[in-house]
Amino acid sequence: MEKLTVVKIGGKVIDNEKNLGEFLDQFSKIEGPKILVHGGGKLATKFSQRLGLEPKMIEGRRVTDAEALEVVTMIYGGLVNKNIVAGLQARGTNAIGLCGADANLIKAHKRPLKNGIDYGFVGDVDRVNDQVLLGLVNLGLVPIVAPLTHDSNSQLLNTNADTMAAETAIAMSKHYETSLFYTFELEGVMKDINDPNSLINQMGSVYYKELKQEGVVHSGMIPKLDNAFDSLRRGINNLFICHYSRVLDICNSKSDIGTRLYLDENVSNSNYDE
Amino acid sequence: MEKLTVVKIGGKVIDNEKNLGEFLDQFSKIEGPKILVHGGGKLATKFSQRLGLEPKMIEGRRVTDAEALEVVTMIYGGLVNKNIVAGLQARGTNAIGLCGADANLIKAHKRPLKNGIDYGFVGDVDRVNDQVLLGLVNLGLVPIVAPLTHDSNSQLLNTNADTMAAETAIAMSKHYETSLFYTFELEGVMKDINDPNSLINQMGSVYYKELKQEGVVHSGMIPKLDNAFDSLRRGINNLFICHYSRVLDICNSKSDIGTRLYLDENVSNSNYDE
Repeated sequence: MEKLTVVKIGGKVIDNEKNLGEFLDQFSKIEGPKILVHGGGKLATKFSQRLGLEPKMIEGRRVTDAEALEVVTMIYGGLVNKNIVAGLQARGTNAIGLCGADANLIKAHKRPLKNGIDYGFVGDVDRVNDQVLLGLVNLGLVPIVAPLTHDSNSQLLNTNADTMAAETAIAMSKHYETSLFYTFELEGVMKDINDPNSLINQMGSVYYKELKQEGVVHSGMIPKLDNAFDSLRRGINNLFICHYSRVLDICNSKSDIGTRLYLDENVSNSNYDE
Repeated sequence: MEKLTVVKIGGKVIDNEKNLGEFLDQFSKIEGPKILVHGGGKLATKFSQRLGLEPKMIEGRRVTDAEALEVVTMIYGGLVNKNIVAGLQARGTNAIGLCGADANLIKAHKRPLKNGIDYGFVGDVDRVNDQVLLGLVNLGLVPIVAPLTHDSNSQLLNTNADTMAAETAIAMSKHYETSLFYTFELEGVMKDINDPNSLINQMGSVYYKELKQEGVVHSGMIPKLDNAFDSLRRGINNLFICHYSRVLDICNSKSDIGTRLYLDENVSNSNYDE
């Protein structure tokens, strides 16, 4: 089975021209079919402030009202996406920018009320259109996906980029040996965020359970890692959490960097180097 | 040869939700391969005002400085493009939104200084990538093109949508019998703009020359019509100037609406109904 690389980049890369350039240099060098999913970063917030819009938050989560949806459609679907595409084209990568509405790529539904809270125009993913992605990849194109979906009824929806990356990789694992990279500004999952030597290089599902019980992995990381292991169970072959500048090295089989997640119940899936 | 329809819509359609809906209803019903090129409309100007940016004009033409380029990238490439795509998806048309950087679709160069005037980040089209458009159309996709190009060196460029539509139709005329529709809010080219009965239904290149000499066609229309006849000479089979709500009727061979342009020197190209 041919290999496919799916990479998620987040705000700290997108918001900084130097970081983004460094990442794109590497991403353009990854061999074989690949897909990039980008988050939004702080640009949308900055822009909302310039427009005099008040960010609406409920229990620490942003609520996407009609005006906020306009802003993320402009910033994520327009400014960020098209600049990444132009940057990759300059590096010889035939990037094509898409949101979930384009080519009916990712259908979602508006998140239902939770405890009476309406999160607004936020999408929960229903399905990824693997056939159209396969068609684009077979044309030699590299999809660059902005964190927006649609409901097939004209409504765009603000959608979590981590989820979009995972669902995309899962859908494509029917066709490829798929590796998903969650990148951020740390080297990987750390036992102690203040100790750069505490990187967890390999994290099996059994070890993860132990780390949770010991309280080493806690708070914000737990839902992210739960989702990551769930993605492995749903078909992704390899999953890495790493610094945004390390993706190419890991693709080239350097094994002492980043955090590799694997399932102990399915060790055959975890032999990325072989 | 299979038929391909290329439609250009401008500001008066894009800026008005009802007009846009009416147009998309029709566009979604056009049979066969099709491509939509949209202009910008007044949204970018409105947005610039909200952001407190002063529009820069030289001799009546907008100058695109770095901030203005950001705004058009957001508005044309993001807000307008993605809302058209979502609207077409809801109508069962498998639209894919693109700017000229996506899939290396339209390469341009920054317009050189003219009489010492720097128009800023404005693109003059070098070439349209007909192979990648063909690939997308063959996947059953309907490209929706925003008026932005790139220079292959990371730079996005604000680009005239009429030109992009014409160059796209010309490039695709190698592969299809291509019809280009320039749509606007009038019924077509009028002898007297105040007389709705003065529509010129058929305009051959010889008749056009006469109308120019008589001063019936003048000012702003002359470069547009010169370019249109030039596009016919460069390979487009059929060219119509019509109201945005008339495209489907004309596609269905109604011949008493809109203005059809044709070349007298090449009458075989003008038999659209046959």
